[in-house]
Amino acid sequence: MSDRWIADRMRHIDASGIRKVFDLAAKLKDPINLSIGQPHFDTPEPVKAAVKDAIDAGKNAYSQTQGIAPLRERLAADVASRYGHADRQVLITSGTSGALHLVLSTLVGPGDEVIVFDPWFVMYKHLTTLSGGTVVEVSTYPDFRIDVQKVADAITDRTKVILFNTPANPTGAVADERTVRDLAALAAERDVCLVSDEIYSHFCYDGPFARPAAFNDQVVVIDGLSKSHSMTGHRVGFAHGPAHVVEQMTKLQQFTFVCSPHPSQWGGVAALDVDISGHVEDYRRKRDFARDALRQKFTVHGGDGAFYLFPEAPGGSGTEFVKRCLDKNLLVIPGSVFSPADTHFRLSYAATDEALERGVEILLSLA
Amino acid sequence: MSDRWIADRMRHIDASGIRKVFDLAAKLKDPINLSIGQPHFDTPEPVKAAVKDAIDAGKNAYSQTQGIAPLRERLAADVASRYGHADRQVLITSGTSGALHLVLSTLVGPGDEVIVFDPWFVMYKHLTTLSGGTVVEVSTYPDFRIDVQKVADAITDRTKVILFNTPANPTGAVADERTVRDLAALAAERDVCLVSDEIYSHFCYDGPFARPAAFNDQVVVIDGLSKSHSMTGHRVGFAHGPAHVVEQMTKLQQFTFVCSPHPSQWGGVAALDVDISGHVEDYRRKRDFARDALRQKFTVHGGDGAFYLFPEAPGGSGTEFVKRCLDKNLLVIPGSVFSPADTHFRLSYAATDEALERGVEILLSLA
Repeated sequence: MSDRWIADRMRHIDASGIRKVFDLAAKLKDPINLSIGQPHFDTPEPVKAAVKDAIDAGKNAYSQTQGIAPLRERLAADVASRYGHADRQVLITSGTSGALHLVLSTLVGPGDEVIVFDPWFVMYKHLTTLSGGTVVEVSTYPDFRIDVQKVADAITDRTKVILFNTPANPTGAVADERTVRDLAALAAERDVCLVSDEIYSHFCYDGPFARPAAFNDQVVVIDGLSKSHSMTGHRVGFAHGPAHVVEQMTKLQQFTFVCSPHPSQWGGVAALDVDISGHVEDYRRKRDFARDALRQKFTVHGGDGAFYLFPEAPGGSGTEFVKRCLDKNLLVIPGSVFSPADTHFRLSYAATDEALERGVEILLSLA
Repeated sequence: MSDRWIADRMRHIDASGIRKVFDLAAKLKDPINLSIGQPHFDTPEPVKAAVKDAIDAGKNAYSQTQGIAPLRERLAADVASRYGHADRQVLITSGTSGALHLVLSTLVGPGDEVIVFDPWFVMYKHLTTLSGGTVVEVSTYPDFRIDVQKVADAITDRTKVILFNTPANPTGAVADERTVRDLAALAAERDVCLVSDEIYSHFCYDGPFARPAAFNDQVVVIDGLSKSHSMTGHRVGFAHGPAHVVEQMTKLQQFTFVCSPHPSQWGGVAALDVDISGHVEDYRRKRDFARDALRQKFTVHGGDGAFYLFPEAPGGSGTEFVKRCLDKNLLVIPGSVFSPADTHFRLSYAATDEALERGVEILLSLA
């Protein structure tokens, strides 16, 4: 066996940052863990019951590639009533990461460019590299607002995708309607595909969620039930967009993911009838507490949605500050995992009140 | 939106053959369906119970990327006792197709070559194209035996992988130990990665299953529980191989599949204690019946394992013969889906005795 076995692309994918954090976490004894990127409440009972019923009913074999009809049709009806686009199709995917992988593999080839907003969700860069493309970063520092003129300036002949995420991971920033509308119009004008990752759309605390596809019927939307219904381990996501893109994504899914796990898709149908507003209120309250408290000593922009805050690190180095937190048994993630800049850190308030209060107390003591 | 949106790779992936068959099938009313690539028995009760228990126990969030420890450790112990390779690691994947996607993306880049045996499992070509490589076909017609000298002749400086599948889909051919040993030695000698897809290893009717990794410690094995335990919709597969390859596959899994569905992995643990020998005996009996009957009028090579037969099509055209079958409400798959040659057809005997008997009767009437 020789080193020549490994494809070049693998040398350009360095996923060690987040792994280092997890390795450190594994060494801590009962840490205060504010690093988790998923809800802290359990999957709603009706969802669990529906998955178990599906298993008993023998829904254990492959589903259709595009997903079970009851889930696809429910989502398609929602999408149709919301947007009214004649050409919009829905595909059930294996989580949102599955949908992101499919859409980037469908659209992006070697030499193509994908515009991402810095700081970004950690997968975006790796999935772009995997498809042979390169990311072009548009900075949103220091306030995590998107300057659409900067996006316009970043578009080249090789730009295939603008990869947009609001509410955003890791900043919790929520783009306002004007920004969303302008971005959607820019994508249309320049014939670039706007891919909108809306996995946190339910967690939008200070106003309505502005949807890019409302302003541009060619937007590909990536969404899922993992975060809203705390079923990340069930791998049920979905995508919708213009038919000619979704059909290509479906073709790819046939021989990669094959289908979202069949019994879990039935849980997805049940999830659509579960009211999660209590959980959203709970996270709003946790956000209010954590952001207000931290703003006494930290600069905190964003935090209007999702369940993350991305404060500036005292001393200027996210990595150094996170080490100081680890010394106090508190786990947060350095900004360098999400950005070329190592100036911030991410905390997740998807945690119990007790953990959050203790974590905030430690952070304030370190600032 | 313009046609330039779609990446070039998508133009080189034509998955329409199998879809045409499914579209035709959808039009038939209650067809005799001998086209199915999965067991016809339901998932064993202990597997279903274990998945349901996991859901109740709150195993609904992401698992570790590499899979839950109880499943990985059980499989690793089996692998260690079987091979005794110091450097062999196990990764739990989202089905065998997930494992295949990961290993090809890890090893194969633009311009690289993957040797496949014609006829091949339909995914191999598409997954190779997705990774930027090209397949080099080594024919196994007419008897579906592998000529290792032909493989040696097909290896070039760009060959990264020999993708080997025994028992094979679509032919049911099982490679003998000498072929397996010679192929393993060739891969070692030429420093090429032998990827062994062993998803049908439990279904080997006429002798022991010869394992390439027994003769070459660098072989990457792709395996899973989908076919042996009839849980294709649960997406639980696994791979094992040299650590430096499996570590790269794990890195890729982190941001593509994320993890095999968490509750289903607990079903995988239970599956390892389920005795499936009754089902294997059942398929052996069905194979004996179908192959013996068809050999009265058809040329049938292979069929020593898996649950497929790949007879020659009377008249010479698989597509034309399958149309004649469809006219009789019988669904089988033309060989052109698995091969550049359109001279055969695939039937699956993963069906009830009644369906199989009726199907065989129709086939005999058409020959």
